[in-house]
Amino acid sequence: MYRTHTCGELRLADAGQTVTLAGWVQRIRKMGGMTFVDLRDRYGITQLVADAASDEAVAAAVAGLGREYVIQVTGRVAERQSKNPKMDTGDIEILLDKVNVLNPSEIPPFTIEDVSDGGEELRARYRYLDLRRNPLKNALTLRHRMAHEVRNYLDGEGFMEIETPCLIKSTPEGARDFVVPSRMNPGEFYALPQSPQTFKQLLMVAGYDRYFQIVRCFRDEDLRADRQPEFTQIDCEMSFVEQEDVLNLFEGMMRHLFKAVINVDIAPKIPRMSWYDAMDKYGSDKPDIRFGMEIHEVTRLVQGCGFSVFDSVEYVGAIAVPGAAGYTRKQTDELTEWVKRPQVGAKGLVYIKMNEDGTVKSSVDKFYTEDQLKAVAAEAGAKQGDLLLLLCGPKRKTQTMLGVLRIEMGNRLGFRDPKVFAPLWVVDFPLLEWDDETQRFYAMHHPFTAPKPEHIEWFNSNKKEDLERVCANAYDFVLNGTELGGGSIRIHQADVQKRMFEVLGISPEDADYKFGFIINAFKFGAPPHGGLAFGFDRVCALFGGQETIRDYIAFPKNNMGRDVMLDAPSAIDDIQMDELFLKSVAPEKK
Amino acid sequence: MYRTHTCGELRLADAGQTVTLAGWVQRIRKMGGMTFVDLRDRYGITQLVADAASDEAVAAAVAGLGREYVIQVTGRVAERQSKNPKMDTGDIEILLDKVNVLNPSEIPPFTIEDVSDGGEELRARYRYLDLRRNPLKNALTLRHRMAHEVRNYLDGEGFMEIETPCLIKSTPEGARDFVVPSRMNPGEFYALPQSPQTFKQLLMVAGYDRYFQIVRCFRDEDLRADRQPEFTQIDCEMSFVEQEDVLNLFEGMMRHLFKAVINVDIAPKIPRMSWYDAMDKYGSDKPDIRFGMEIHEVTRLVQGCGFSVFDSVEYVGAIAVPGAAGYTRKQTDELTEWVKRPQVGAKGLVYIKMNEDGTVKSSVDKFYTEDQLKAVAAEAGAKQGDLLLLLCGPKRKTQTMLGVLRIEMGNRLGFRDPKVFAPLWVVDFPLLEWDDETQRFYAMHHPFTAPKPEHIEWFNSNKKEDLERVCANAYDFVLNGTELGGGSIRIHQADVQKRMFEVLGISPEDADYKFGFIINAFKFGAPPHGGLAFGFDRVCALFGGQETIRDYIAFPKNNMGRDVMLDAPSAIDDIQMDELFLKSVAPEKK
Repeated sequence: MYRTHTCGELRLADAGQTVTLAGWVQRIRKMGGMTFVDLRDRYGITQLVADAASDEAVAAAVAGLGREYVIQVTGRVAERQSKNPKMDTGDIEILLDKVNVLNPSEIPPFTIEDVSDGGEELRARYRYLDLRRNPLKNALTLRHRMAHEVRNYLDGEGFMEIETPCLIKSTPEGARDFVVPSRMNPGEFYALPQSPQTFKQLLMVAGYDRYFQIVRCFRDEDLRADRQPEFTQIDCEMSFVEQEDVLNLFEGMMRHLFKAVINVDIAPKIPRMSWYDAMDKYGSDKPDIRFGMEIHEVTRLVQGCGFSVFDSVEYVGAIAVPGAAGYTRKQTDELTEWVKRPQVGAKGLVYIKMNEDGTVKSSVDKFYTEDQLKAVAAEAGAKQGDLLLLLCGPKRKTQTMLGVLRIEMGNRLGFRDPKVFAPLWVVDFPLLEWDDETQRFYAMHHPFTAPKPEHIEWFNSNKKEDLERVCANAYDFVLNGTELGGGSIRIHQADVQKRMFEVLGISPEDADYKFGFIINAFKFGAPPHGGLAFGFDRVCALFGGQETIRDYIAFPKNNMGRDVMLDAPSAIDDIQMDELFLKSVAPEKK
Repeated sequence: MYRTHTCGELRLADAGQTVTLAGWVQRIRKMGGMTFVDLRDRYGITQLVADAASDEAVAAAVAGLGREYVIQVTGRVAERQSKNPKMDTGDIEILLDKVNVLNPSEIPPFTIEDVSDGGEELRARYRYLDLRRNPLKNALTLRHRMAHEVRNYLDGEGFMEIETPCLIKSTPEGARDFVVPSRMNPGEFYALPQSPQTFKQLLMVAGYDRYFQIVRCFRDEDLRADRQPEFTQIDCEMSFVEQEDVLNLFEGMMRHLFKAVINVDIAPKIPRMSWYDAMDKYGSDKPDIRFGMEIHEVTRLVQGCGFSVFDSVEYVGAIAVPGAAGYTRKQTDELTEWVKRPQVGAKGLVYIKMNEDGTVKSSVDKFYTEDQLKAVAAEAGAKQGDLLLLLCGPKRKTQTMLGVLRIEMGNRLGFRDPKVFAPLWVVDFPLLEWDDETQRFYAMHHPFTAPKPEHIEWFNSNKKEDLERVCANAYDFVLNGTELGGGSIRIHQADVQKRMFEVLGISPEDADYKFGFIINAFKFGAPPHGGLAFGFDRVCALFGGQETIRDYIAFPKNNMGRDVMLDAPSAIDDIQMDELFLKSVAPEKK
């Protein structure tokens, strides 16, 4: 070992000891003949002191150091004159006897401080230097802790972690697969898994009863902000369970993680909300319930009063923004422009100010009496001093826009404190989603989700309106407006699975080609089963109080799916292409 | 929940209780009006009883059951008349009140028993049924336990598990990479990692001090027996350490695993052997030290006596096979044929029988006196009753053949009990290996392994004989003749790394293109570091007393790299090929 102690370890009680430390030079300060060096390692920072008056050689050695040099030092632990209560080692310093440069460093391209002066692109290129900064170190430490506690909890509950393969078969539904050409099987490809869904179901068929895995998954999507082509899932499945069993068990896991990792107590019972309520009240299937400002339908109250915009629509909804009645004309105009942006897509915004003095002022005053407006306000739960915002149009679409507006107002009013945690189960999802463009149904979760047993008659019907109202025993775990995970009770009967493929317009031949092994497996005694998966990167980020996952992944990719540190992906040589029986027909790079 | 208890849980103390169980029908036996059903789940087997005399409906339901049906039953726990002490639940049975078929089963294509009647290919196709058998369930349970204990131990030692990416950049040394075409970066490819080697070194540069990961790795090799294209590693790295620190820490981990997972106490100090000793004494860099039968050089003793075969060679070596002096001519002939097979490659075999009566008989009697043969026997440590086997040729090659012969004799004599565990560190590996064919040096471990500091002068020399004697602080963990892991102290200085690439004949341009990021990283304060990696699949297999890893992987591939259950790899459709800007030029399948 190059050291007797770490840089985060020494205390006043160690004073007088001779110790050896090793680490990186964080900072050097000269004060007359004294030089102070902050020595850093993963565990903390310890102050080193060289005094030219007592040891010229050491002082000279220290004078030759630069930022980020790796050094090994020996010296005596001494009590500091001016203690630093903010540092764990702030009571002591090391009076240096010996300085050994283990490795010098060029001047780093940006400062290794909590807030760095380096731009995102530069820091990505030198990720190994960015990773030295505390915010990233803390993020990865939290991630390690989190994974460890997930495993402890699930192991304690009798779950077995079972590794499933990465080189699998291309599956059709959902996002695009990454594929891997097989040299030994010319012209054929493996696919990288988008999730271990079918494998975990096969493990249930195999009788493993309780499975989990913290597992890498892959999706070749056009990257939206804060998505990664490879990501990590906490993937779980259980046999002989009903929805209630799954929710209770993973509620327990989440409670354990909150307590064990970030010392937060969450409510003894995580609230549950049906998908229909979530859409109606929050305009979202992942409501942020840290604040109210719920959506209220006011269609009946505003129609038939001569305002043709409202009269012609399916739905009018409102949210009451607390304390915002004082918004100026400029502010309401800006809000109107905001909702008209293509990202929201509203045609306009109607407001009603419930002034503190009891008067009412709205953008549609000429169509409504004050009483009519007050009735709308009452319906929406607005109090004096609130600002009512109304949007109209087709029901679900308008609710979604109101949901987006609600989140925006929550942000503006500071209702979304990342240190407050409001978990929620959203349940009773529709099984199927109709797509107008392709004129077919899609699975809202995935094609293995079971219809609720009480809806099986609708599921077997061929009427669109019957199929639309089939619900699934599916559930999402939502935290602070972000979906962290989801799952369902699965289909375990071969005939129900066949019917599902039929409803989704997957031909028996296609189903057999793509899912033959699982349809087949269901013929040999599949138990009732269900499970769920959490997006581990995002769970970590939210627990850390961050919106973006990038800092919680050691080596992330950028929005073009590139690792700019490695410069990957890259061209491969012709020999390799020939061995794979492949030819590139990519356009020349300019 | 579909059950109140599992099938492994009920005991005599539970008699009288009404319980609900769920599981698979293992076996059905009729005895008069009584029907006995063994109900199985992951946790065990419980006997169910239906009595036609007391409940006709239940008896009829049971009569309709078949093997592997999934059922849910309710009944009363009763003491058995004839107890089965071999079963945990052997004191009780369940008197059935209700039988509910959750899912019927077709007749499985092979028996779900400890020893199945199904062939390997058939069982692979129905892996989910094969996984129901106890030997596989026990293998995967051991694997789960093992992973959990590895994590507990390393977490306790301050290691952080940090996930490294799967989509990386193609690296040149070693085996072939699997590659993944990038749709968003036309004509470019990711590679799947053969190991996270460079990433763990970057994490050391980043100051993470102690890293580990249980991680999937990929190698596109022509598959030898018992290799998988994807496999799992326990990957570890530490900073500010010397070889001794690494060995001690992982010796501790192995001791912990032996005790915690299979309750085996291993020696307080795992023996260490230099690579040179291992080659000289065992003809292998992974000696099985469960038994002696060491190789002894007898060159000087047998040369100059007129036996021209021995006179003309560099090296003659012998092993003394205990108690085998009684081998017949037929047996020694067979052994001679055995060593002449191309897998061993010897030109012939000389034997000396040290008969129990004190006489000596050899295949070279006409060239040697009895005293001369006895001197050879003494040198090789042979006692009366032993059979001496001699091979000759170039030194290392002959030692290797003797090593193979030694293992074979160990097998034949039953010296290789899989329940006996003899771990060993092999240390002091040569840094470089000369390849006659390509007339260049290759890295014996990998190009990041550091030369021993005391050999740095030889390392900087350009003489072949100097470079050949450079040793590395590299080490392998060997168990029972199998290499389970290995590692080294790494190069942490940019100039040493550059010299290494030079010695390996990698041009600065090539090195920069392929390893630019790590060469660059070393300029910014890389700490001294080292680590190792264990082959997790093989560690599990050996702990389980098995030679083959296939049962320790839930969904393995066959020798052609195919998953026969999924039927992967497979063709992908033209749209996907077009999106990837790829054309297949594979020959048509016949």
